Amino acid sequence: MRIPSGLETPLLLLDEARMQHNIERMQSRMDALGVRFRPHVKTSKCPEVVRRQLAAGALGITVSTLKEAERFAAEGVTDILYAVAIVPGKFDHALRLARDGARLTLVVESVDAARELARHGAAHGHCHEVLIEVDTDGHRSGVRPDDRLLFRIADALRDDGGRGSHLAGVMTHAGSSYALSTPDALAAMAEKERAGCVAAAERLRAAGHACETVSVGSTPTALSARSLEGVTEVRAGVYVFFDLVMAGIGVCTRDDIALSVLCTVIGHRPDAGWIITDAGWMAVSRDRGTRTQAHDFGYGAVCDAEGRAIDELAFADANQEHGVLHWFGDPRIDLPRRFPLGSQLRIVPNHACATGAQHDGYTVLRAAGGDVERWPRFNGW
Amino acid sequence: MRIPSGLETPLLLLDEARMQHNIERMQSRMDALGVRFRPHVKTSKCPEVVRRQLAAGALGITVSTLKEAERFAAEGVTDILYAVAIVPGKFDHALRLARDGARLTLVVESVDAARELARHGAAHGHCHEVLIEVDTDGHRSGVRPDDRLLFRIADALRDDGGRGSHLAGVMTHAGSSYALSTPDALAAMAEKERAGCVAAAERLRAAGHACETVSVGSTPTALSARSLEGVTEVRAGVYVFFDLVMAGIGVCTRDDIALSVLCTVIGHRPDAGWIITDAGWMAVSRDRGTRTQAHDFGYGAVCDAEGRAIDELAFADANQEHGVLHWFGDPRIDLPRRFPLGSQLRIVPNHACATGAQHDGYTVLRAAGGDVERWPRFNGW
Repeated sequence: MRIPSGLETPLLLLDEARMQHNIERMQSRMDALGVRFRPHVKTSKCPEVVRRQLAAGALGITVSTLKEAERFAAEGVTDILYAVAIVPGKFDHALRLARDGARLTLVVESVDAARELARHGAAHGHCHEVLIEVDTDGHRSGVRPDDRLLFRIADALRDDGGRGSHLAGVMTHAGSSYALSTPDALAAMAEKERAGCVAAAERLRAAGHACETVSVGSTPTALSARSLEGVTEVRAGVYVFFDLVMAGIGVCTRDDIALSVLCTVIGHRPDAGWIITDAGWMAVSRDRGTRTQAHDFGYGAVCDAEGRAIDELAFADANQEHGVLHWFGDPRIDLPRRFPLGSQLRIVPNHACATGAQHDGYTVLRAAGGDVERWPRFNGW
Repeated sequence: MRIPSGLETPLLLLDEARMQHNIERMQSRMDALGVRFRPHVKTSKCPEVVRRQLAAGALGITVSTLKEAERFAAEGVTDILYAVAIVPGKFDHALRLARDGARLTLVVESVDAARELARHGAAHGHCHEVLIEVDTDGHRSGVRPDDRLLFRIADALRDDGGRGSHLAGVMTHAGSSYALSTPDALAAMAEKERAGCVAAAERLRAAGHACETVSVGSTPTALSARSLEGVTEVRAGVYVFFDLVMAGIGVCTRDDIALSVLCTVIGHRPDAGWIITDAGWMAVSRDRGTRTQAHDFGYGAVCDAEGRAIDELAFADANQEHGVLHWFGDPRIDLPRRFPLGSQLRIVPNHACATGAQHDGYTVLRAAGGDVERWPRFNGW
């Protein structure tokens, strides 16, 4: 897509048509699999983006910080899952959000957190909605589906007669899926995620807990699951923009990636085959997520200003406001002539969540054409 | 230094006493070496910090973006060096800043940029102040001191009879100093930086250019130079906070580092020896600057809430809002008892500029004691 001239760089570009395609692709998959979809808004942190996810059929959102919960509740999005294990220091904040109208669901993965949360709710006349985090892949946190700890947490949540907290269900995130790259391995991981989370729910139900919600997800597994039997909702975040890591995993193509950083050529080192741009790590982030994949893109894939890949240029090094691109094409080429001072390039990010977080808004190339628009995003806690 | 209870995490802490010590250490060195000091504000992007650098004796500032120039000019700091090679797309912005009262100096390293800048100035009735960037270490950009290109750039700057631009001098940045770690190697690099930049100035003077300013610097070389003969000003940024990379280079100790991220223990995986915190890469950045140093600190060094190092805990992995700390101490220890849910830890950053940029302000532990204060910082372009 062509971009207007005169944009001061570096600048975060969002291709609305690609984003809309990604939103519809995920939502139609979720509809076909018969589950609710709860997008993770940590990727965009942008009301304009989330509005489109909800318009496509998403029911509620997932957040990674209470600030996200606060901002989106203020936008009228009230069905919110805070998908990071809550700790006592955040109980009052969560309570304020609930009192302000958010239908906030919290996550615990320990008896201590469950007991404290139940007490906190009871002490404040509020019943916290809670999911137990289940570990289905050994990736990070959560309770293993076959661990008796599940029952101890569930019991702790209703210690006070269930006045302070209510076990709404279980949730899991198969973060290990990020290390995979074949459809079969991804489908197997999605099945492991599903089966483990459903098993945890069934054990809790057998012990007398209602456990209505069974929430699973990551972008790779959501796009690879062949059945979601027993699952009630799926979460995914980065699918909305996609990135090089997702392309490396194989769940999108480079042409699906909706985000890029527009930058300007500010210098050359023809002897070294280098081009210097004004997009350093501040503009693209220090994320090197493709380092461990089959194709390492350095700090991002280089494209021309219209978004066409220039595979002979590698984004090899980054300082704060300098990007260093190495030319691997014909060594006889006149670099300053081919990429003149002041000409623009685009960098496709390794990791959309990380690159997005370096910016306070998106310069949107509208699907309908016409002028670019600026959509603010927020950061911080 | 003790921190007050009840701070919601993650949070960027700034130890004012340490910062003040760092500011005074650098300024007194510069005073002793007989040069002006122009701190690089890209590290803090915070008026409260820069005010203290100026109060200690700094004359003017260095910026990495025109937004920094704009914000600090609005604060009354008008002597500003924009230390990234300027391109035509930013000329109008620079002109606006100059018209609004900034005494802005720009940098070029090519004939094309020089010629265009001279024309732009002449066309708008403004004389841009310009330094030529000199490459003294082959690190990134700039003109080699012995390259005839120096004269061609200088000539291009006065193409129009000098109405549109004025060659104020030369500048260099020995970025290669970041890869060193012995006092002798650092002193040699500082001397190389000095000698190369002074040589470029002398060649230009011999050709009839006044070339008053000779500007050099990086934190490692500024703290290692034994003589700065011929240099008129030094630039350095990260010294104000310091970080683990600087400690690894050997120009500070870990006790000099003024910045840390306060976080909370949100979970445990005793079987794996893991502690999960709420400081993921969003709070500490993806910078892994110590990876190539003698001691690799992962995503940062772990300390207790008062700032005492816990060397048995390694910040081994980071997701967006989850930090994964690995325990390398006595395996029989009861991790949840030693580091209880809800307890707080501090992470000392690899790279202060990168970690700072993930936050919109500093929670300041005042040198005088008493309540913490919040100092806002800005990001973006």
